[in-house]
Amino acid sequence: MNDDESFFATSDPCWLAAALRHPVREAAVDVITSGLLSETIAAELSVIGATDVSRSLRPGSRVVIGTVEALRGAEIEPGLIAELTWRCGAVSDEGFVLLSSKDVVYIAALTERGLLYGFYRFLREPHLRPDLAIAESPARPIRMLNHWDNMHADSPLGSVERGYAGPSIFFHDGRIVIDKRRIIDYSRLLASIGINAIAINNVNVHQTEARLLVDQLTELADLADIFRRFGIALFVSVDFAAPLSVGGLNTADPLDTNVEHWWTELTARVYRAIPDFGGYLVKADSEGRPGPFEYGRGHADGANMLARALRPFDGTVFWRCFVYNAQQDWRDRTTDRARAAFGHFAPLDGTFDDNVVLQIKTGPMDFQVREPVSPLLGALPKTNLAVELQITQEYTGHQIDLFYLPRTWEEILDFDFDGPHADSGRASQRSSSSEGRTVAALTSARRGRRAGMVAVSNVGADANWTGNTLAQANLYGYGRLAWSDDISSSEILEEWIRLTFDLDDTDEHALHHVMYESPDTYEQYTAPLGVGWMVTPHTHYGPSVDGYEYSKWGTYHFADHTGIGVDRTVTTGTGYAGQYPTGWAQQYEFVERCPDELLLFFHHVPYTHVLHTGSTVIQHIYDSHFRGVEQVENMVSTWNSLRERIPSPVHDDVNSRLQLQLRNAIEWRDQVCTYFLRKSGIADARGRRIY
Amino acid sequence: MNDDESFFATSDPCWLAAALRHPVREAAVDVITSGLLSETIAAELSVIGATDVSRSLRPGSRVVIGTVEALRGAEIEPGLIAELTWRCGAVSDEGFVLLSSKDVVYIAALTERGLLYGFYRFLREPHLRPDLAIAESPARPIRMLNHWDNMHADSPLGSVERGYAGPSIFFHDGRIVIDKRRIIDYSRLLASIGINAIAINNVNVHQTEARLLVDQLTELADLADIFRRFGIALFVSVDFAAPLSVGGLNTADPLDTNVEHWWTELTARVYRAIPDFGGYLVKADSEGRPGPFEYGRGHADGANMLARALRPFDGTVFWRCFVYNAQQDWRDRTTDRARAAFGHFAPLDGTFDDNVVLQIKTGPMDFQVREPVSPLLGALPKTNLAVELQITQEYTGHQIDLFYLPRTWEEILDFDFDGPHADSGRASQRSSSSEGRTVAALTSARRGRRAGMVAVSNVGADANWTGNTLAQANLYGYGRLAWSDDISSSEILEEWIRLTFDLDDTDEHALHHVMYESPDTYEQYTAPLGVGWMVTPHTHYGPSVDGYEYSKWGTYHFADHTGIGVDRTVTTGTGYAGQYPTGWAQQYEFVERCPDELLLFFHHVPYTHVLHTGSTVIQHIYDSHFRGVEQVENMVSTWNSLRERIPSPVHDDVNSRLQLQLRNAIEWRDQVCTYFLRKSGIADARGRRIY
Repeated sequence: MNDDESFFATSDPCWLAAALRHPVREAAVDVITSGLLSETIAAELSVIGATDVSRSLRPGSRVVIGTVEALRGAEIEPGLIAELTWRCGAVSDEGFVLLSSKDVVYIAALTERGLLYGFYRFLREPHLRPDLAIAESPARPIRMLNHWDNMHADSPLGSVERGYAGPSIFFHDGRIVIDKRRIIDYSRLLASIGINAIAINNVNVHQTEARLLVDQLTELADLADIFRRFGIALFVSVDFAAPLSVGGLNTADPLDTNVEHWWTELTARVYRAIPDFGGYLVKADSEGRPGPFEYGRGHADGANMLARALRPFDGTVFWRCFVYNAQQDWRDRTTDRARAAFGHFAPLDGTFDDNVVLQIKTGPMDFQVREPVSPLLGALPKTNLAVELQITQEYTGHQIDLFYLPRTWEEILDFDFDGPHADSGRASQRSSSSEGRTVAALTSARRGRRAGMVAVSNVGADANWTGNTLAQANLYGYGRLAWSDDISSSEILEEWIRLTFDLDDTDEHALHHVMYESPDTYEQYTAPLGVGWMVTPHTHYGPSVDGYEYSKWGTYHFADHTGIGVDRTVTTGTGYAGQYPTGWAQQYEFVERCPDELLLFFHHVPYTHVLHTGSTVIQHIYDSHFRGVEQVENMVSTWNSLRERIPSPVHDDVNSRLQLQLRNAIEWRDQVCTYFLRKSGIADARGRRIY
Repeated sequence: MNDDESFFATSDPCWLAAALRHPVREAAVDVITSGLLSETIAAELSVIGATDVSRSLRPGSRVVIGTVEALRGAEIEPGLIAELTWRCGAVSDEGFVLLSSKDVVYIAALTERGLLYGFYRFLREPHLRPDLAIAESPARPIRMLNHWDNMHADSPLGSVERGYAGPSIFFHDGRIVIDKRRIIDYSRLLASIGINAIAINNVNVHQTEARLLVDQLTELADLADIFRRFGIALFVSVDFAAPLSVGGLNTADPLDTNVEHWWTELTARVYRAIPDFGGYLVKADSEGRPGPFEYGRGHADGANMLARALRPFDGTVFWRCFVYNAQQDWRDRTTDRARAAFGHFAPLDGTFDDNVVLQIKTGPMDFQVREPVSPLLGALPKTNLAVELQITQEYTGHQIDLFYLPRTWEEILDFDFDGPHADSGRASQRSSSSEGRTVAALTSARRGRRAGMVAVSNVGADANWTGNTLAQANLYGYGRLAWSDDISSSEILEEWIRLTFDLDDTDEHALHHVMYESPDTYEQYTAPLGVGWMVTPHTHYGPSVDGYEYSKWGTYHFADHTGIGVDRTVTTGTGYAGQYPTGWAQQYEFVERCPDELLLFFHHVPYTHVLHTGSTVIQHIYDSHFRGVEQVENMVSTWNSLRERIPSPVHDDVNSRLQLQLRNAIEWRDQVCTYFLRKSGIADARGRRIY
C-alpha cells in the first residue's frame, strides 16, 4: 500500500486540482515526523508531483512539516521552536499552525492528524507566502459523512438510496468492493476538507447489511486501514433488530441480558479487528425500522445499551432523531409531523450516556428547500448532539438542478435559539455568537468532544463523484463549514471555484453569482413560502402539488379555494410554534411577525393576504415562479459564456443538466401557477400566460 | 400425455366444479368419433368421474357423442340421423347440437371442435333432460385471450403486467415452464367457455420475449401441443423491431426486402414446428413500442408485411389500434388522446390484407370505469376487427375490489352505431339487433371468419387463478359473451354462481345482487360522471384526483374553482364528438342531451350544472361517493351472510379483500369529496363530514 501508483489512483481530483499547480512541487520539502499520517503526506506530495521530498530536516529546504515534538528534536533555532510551540499550544489536537520564517514555511501541529489538515490547508494557498501565519482548530470535533449505500440492488452494483451520482463506491455484488482505488481517492478528498468520520452503509439496514459486522469483518478492517491513513474513523449503520435477524435470539429488547451480551460480544469482536473503529449509527423506530418501542422501551434504553457495549473502546453511538408517525391520516389535523422529533427527544435530555450522540435533522420535517430550524437542536443542553445535513440533493434537484447548499446550511448554523437578531449579518453572526446559542455554537467544540455535524454524502461511482461537477462544491462546502465558523458560504464558494477551475476574475465572479443565487432560484420555482412537499411522490423530483396532500406522510398544504398553509400556532393550530423558546415562538406565532419565507409553514392564510414585501400570497406565487424560470435562463447563459474556459466534457455535461433544470423549472412554474389559478380563480396581475 | 393423472392436474376447478356433480358420471357414455379432441372429451369424462365410457356405440348407453359423419357410420335409426344431420347443417363448424331422443342424449356436430364445445355445454345442464333440444353456433369466430405475461422479472417467476393473481403460469426463469399442469388445467377452463385462441406473452415485447420464436420454438411447440387438444390456437406477441433486435439487420422497415424476407423465413420456420400456429399480435408505434412510423411507413404497410408472411399458412395478424401520443403536453388543449385511434385508423379502412385483424379497445382512452364506446369500432366496414376488452382489473379494482365486468361489456356490445334507441332494453337489444350496427353485430360471424373479441386475461399462478375467487366470473363471463349474443350478463352471472357454488335460491340471489351491482358501486365511489383517470399514477389503484392532471398521458379533468370536465364537442372543444355517426354525435355534442354518466367526458360544466337526475354536479359527486361506500358496506354484510355456505378458505379470502375494498372506497370518498369541497367551496347539501 506504500506504492504511490496503487495508493493514489487516477480519478477526478476535484478541488485538489489546484494542488497539481502548487509551487510546493518545485520546492525542497522535509516531512520530519514519522508515522502513518506522515506517510500519507509524503505520498500526497508525490502524487501532486513534488520531486524533492526528504523525511529528515535539510538545510535550505523551503517547507518543513513536523509535529512540535519532532521539530524540537530537529536542528531548528530555539526562538522559532518556542514560537511554534506557543502557537501550537493554542490550537486543539486536530489543529495546526502554518508559519513562514526566513523563506521557510513551517507546518506544525501537536499531532500527525493536525499536520495532515495543516498540509491540505497549505495546499490551498496559491503561493509560498513569506508572511504566512495561520493557526486553525476545527470548530466542531465531529465532522462526519453518512452514506446511504446499499449492498444489494437489482444490479450487481450497490445502489445508493437518494443517490444521483451512480452506484455505490463501497459495495459490489453484495460485498465490499475488492478494487479500493476509488475509496482511497475519496478518503484523500475527505481528509483535505477535514472529514474525520464516515458511516458507509444506509441507515435503512437491510438483510445483507445487517450481517456486515458478522460476515465481512475482514473486509471492513481493510476499509478501516485505508480510512485510518487519512484520519477517518469507520462507522457502520446497524439494525436494531440484529440480535433477532442475525444473532438468532428471540428478542431485541435493549433491557434483555442476552441482547446486551450479544451486542457486547459483537462489539468486542469488531474492535479486535478494527481497534479504532468509530462505532454505530442507528435509525430506530423510524419509517418502519425496528427499535426499542416494540419492547415498550425508550430511545435512551436503546441507545445506552449500545453505548455500554462501545464504551470500553471509546466508541460512539449516533442515534437518529428522525422519528415520527409515518402512518398518519390526512383527515386528522391534530397530529403534526413537525412536532414529533422534539416531542420524542426533548423530554429525554440528560438521560443519554456520554458516548451517545443524538443526530438531528436541520428542520422538523425532512430536508425541504425551506423549513424552520429544528427546535430540538435548542432543547438538549445536557445531551451530545450533531446536526444532520443532506448533501445529496433529494429534494433540491437531484444533482440535475443547481443548488449550492452551503448557503442554506449557513443560515441554519446562524440560527440563534436566544431569539431573532434584528441587525446582524449572517456570516459574522455565526462567528461572533459562538458563545451564544446558535446552531453553530450548539454543535461546536465548546459542547465537548462529541458535538458536531453529520451529512449524507452526494457521492457515487460517477467519474466526477457527484454526477454534476458543480455539486462537488456542496461536498467541499460541507467539510469547510463543519471545520470552520470563520468563513462564510460565499467565501467557501470563492475558494472552491478557484481550486477547481482556472478562470479569470470576471468569470469566477459570474460563476459565483449563479451558484450563490442557486438556492434562491430553486426556492422561487418550487413550493412557495415554506409550505414544502409539492413534489412527485417517491422520486421527489419535479412538481406534484397534491402529490403528498392525501398521503400517510404527514406532509400537507391544505390549499382550498380561499387560502393555503398549515396552522402550526399555539392559539389555533397544532402548537408546533410553541416548541421554540419565547423569542422565536412569538415571532412564528403571529402572522404579522412571521417571516414571509416561512409563512405557510406556520399559518393558513387567504390568497389575498399581504406579505411583508407588499405582494399578496397569490401574486407572490405567480411572480416567484416566473422569476425562478428567468433566473434559470440566466444560469444557462452564464454557463454558456464560460464555454471556452471550462474543459469541454465538464462544460457539456453541466450544460445538459442545466437544460433539464430549465425544463424542470418551467414545469414547476406552469403546474404551480395553473394549480393556484384554477383553485383560487385570482388572475395574475401581470397578465402572463397561465394554463 | 394420455395418462389422465398427468394430463389433468388438481387445481381450482372454478365453474367446472359443477361437472364433478353431473349425472353423466353415473351414465353409460359413448364417444364414437376418434381424433384428438375426442380423446380430450374422453379424458375429461374420466376426470369428472364418469366410469362407464366407451369409444364405440353400445346399446343402452345414455349419452352418445359423435360427429355427424361418425353417427352416420353407427347403428342409429335413420330418422334420428336425418334429424341430427339437418340440425347440424344449421350450425357453424364450431357449433353443436344437443338432442334427447328416447332417453338418450346425443351430442352432435360437424366437427370434433363442435363436439368439444357441445360436451362442455352439456356439462352445464344439471340433468340428463329427456327434452333437450339445443343448437348453438358461436356468435363470434374469434374468441381470444391475450396474456400480458413477461419472461423476465426481478424474481425468477415471470411477471404479469397489470396482473393481480400472482406470477405468470407460462414463464419461469426466463423460459417457458417445464411443468405444464397448470397450462393444461387452464386450457380446459378456456375450452369449456369456448375460447379458441391465445397470445401468451405481453404486447410490450422485451428483449427475451423478442427471441421467443427463435430460441424457444421447441418449447412453444410443446405448448401448442397442449392448446391444440383444447381447440386453442397459439399466438405470439412480436416485436416489430425484431429484424433489428433479433435478426441482426440494420432496419425493420416493412417495405425493405430483407425485412420481409426475414419475417417470411421466421414464419416458415415457426409453421414447420407448429403447423396450426395462430399468428402474431402486434403493439406498434404505441407507448414507446417500435413500429412502421419510424421508417415513414403506415400501419397498413406494417401489418400487411406480416400478413404476407403468414398468408401461406392461413395465419393471422392482430394489429392493435391503441395508438396515441404518449408525450402529450398538458398545456396543449388542442391535442385529445380520445381522437387518436380513430384519427390513425379510420382513414385506412379497406387497406389491410384479409388476414389482418385490427384490435380495438372498447373505449377511446384505456379501459376506464366509464368511457363512451370507441367510434373506431363503427368506422371500419371494410376491415376485419376485434374488440379488445380487459378482464384483468387494471382500473377496476385490482381483483381486490369486486367488479363484475360482463355487465359493462354488455353495454358496449349493445351500443348501436345507427344511433341511440330510446326504448329498447339492453339484453334484448344485443340479440335483436344483430343485423344492425351494434358492437355485437360488428364483431360477429356476419363480418366473416376474422371478427370477434379479444380480452386481456386476469389469470396468474394463484391457486384460484384470479386472486379473488369472484373474479373467476369475469373470465367465465368473457367466454360466454364472446360465444353468445343470446344470453344477458345477468343470466351469465346466474350460471356462474350456480356452477361455482352450492347455494340455495335466496343466497344465489343475494350474491347475484351484489355482484351484478358491483360495477355501479365502483363507479359511484371513483371518478365521477365519465371523467376518468383520478387514480394513483403507475399502480392505477386508489384515488389521486390530480394524479394524471399535469402528465404526459393526455388524461385530464381540468377542474378549477368553477367547474370540471373536458370539452370534446365539435363546436367549442376538441371535436371528438364528431367522430361518431350523426345520431350519437348530436347526442354527445349538446350538454342537455348528453347522458349524465358521460357528461364530464364530453363537456366542461359548472359545479352547479343540473343533471338529468335533478341533482347538481357537485351534489352528485358528494352523493354518489357516500352512496358508493354504503353499497360496499352492503356487499360486506351480504358476503358475511353467506359464511356458512361458502368453503371457508374462499369465504375468508374474499372477505379480506372486501375489507380492503371498503377501506379503498372510504379513501376515494374522502379524497374526492375533500378535493371538490376545497376547490369549489360549495358545501354538501346534506351536511355530511367532508375533511
